[in-house]
Amino acid sequence: MSAHQQFVENNQKYVEKFDRPDLPIPPAKKLLIVTCMDARIDAFASIGLNLGDAHVVRNAGGCVQDVIRSIVISQRLLGTREIAVFHHTGCGMLTFSNQQLRDIVKKDAAPEVASQIAEAVDKTDFLAFSDLEQSVKDDIKFLKENPLVLKETVVTGWIYDVHDGKVKQIV
Amino acid sequence: MSAHQQFVENNQKYVEKFDRPDLPIPPAKKLLIVTCMDARIDAFASIGLNLGDAHVVRNAGGCVQDVIRSIVISQRLLGTREIAVFHHTGCGMLTFSNQQLRDIVKKDAAPEVASQIAEAVDKTDFLAFSDLEQSVKDDIKFLKENPLVLKETVVTGWIYDVHDGKVKQIV
Repeated sequence: MSAHQQFVENNQKYVEKFDRPDLPIPPAKKLLIVTCMDARIDAFASIGLNLGDAHVVRNAGGCVQDVIRSIVISQRLLGTREIAVFHHTGCGMLTFSNQQLRDIVKKDAAPEVASQIAEAVDKTDFLAFSDLEQSVKDDIKFLKENPLVLKETVVTGWIYDVHDGKVKQIV
Repeated sequence: MSAHQQFVENNQKYVEKFDRPDLPIPPAKKLLIVTCMDARIDAFASIGLNLGDAHVVRNAGGCVQDVIRSIVISQRLLGTREIAVFHHTGCGMLTFSNQQLRDIVKKDAAPEVASQIAEAVDKTDFLAFSDLEQSVKDDIKFLKENPLVLKETVVTGWIYDVHDGKVKQIV
């Protein structure tokens, strides 16, 4: 069975208890969180945020190179002025290189689409990293130097430990 | 006070109750969710998912054009085989055009960086949309046609209603 076949039934229980119908669009804490797509991370609960408090941008690794479009919309249209970037222990991004992942994708390609897939995957930078703390520092530097991020933005960088749930500030 | 100044204190309470130290990296339900960064969305609770069940990719609008890098990593390295895309009512993406947002960014630019900012913002497609249901259909089509997304992927498209918490399947 596919997971989505349970969504409507599960959602009915959520709707019965739903009590936040009129939250404003702009995040209450003027905050945007960037974190990894990892299934083991509860971006809000782990740092005590509530529904309505912050924008949450997530992708493989919590890499900021992917998120400038979202940051501009968040800051210019919805008033956020703080960004907190979270990477985490045990991240899949620490386990491969661009070349390894490109080889995996090419090896699995059906012959009739192999050249199309090879071209697409060779153009993609998967943004893997080998040093967790350094990856946070690099992302903060990227944000501070990006001309589309407002200069007055408060930017911090963190590591979340998936084993014990602890956060540690890096930048 | 900046929001991040409360993270460590809030996190201590989370850590005291943390009881999921050894979840595996691959998502239990082989599922990847794409949804908007909107602060009013609880991507897991609203459809009955638990920590460890699914990758969660979020950005402005829940637009799939931004997320192929993350999908490839999720599918090829961590075994997901299902994608559920959620857009939502009251989305900020329904309220502006590329040109309007570009004009806002340029108008705010300090003179010494104005040309650098204009160049960067003119290159950015902010992926705004004007029809919510159509935006979900377009994103599902984009995923089904993308050569880097595995052909056997189960792909569904949904709208989440921020007013009552209900989800509705579109595709």
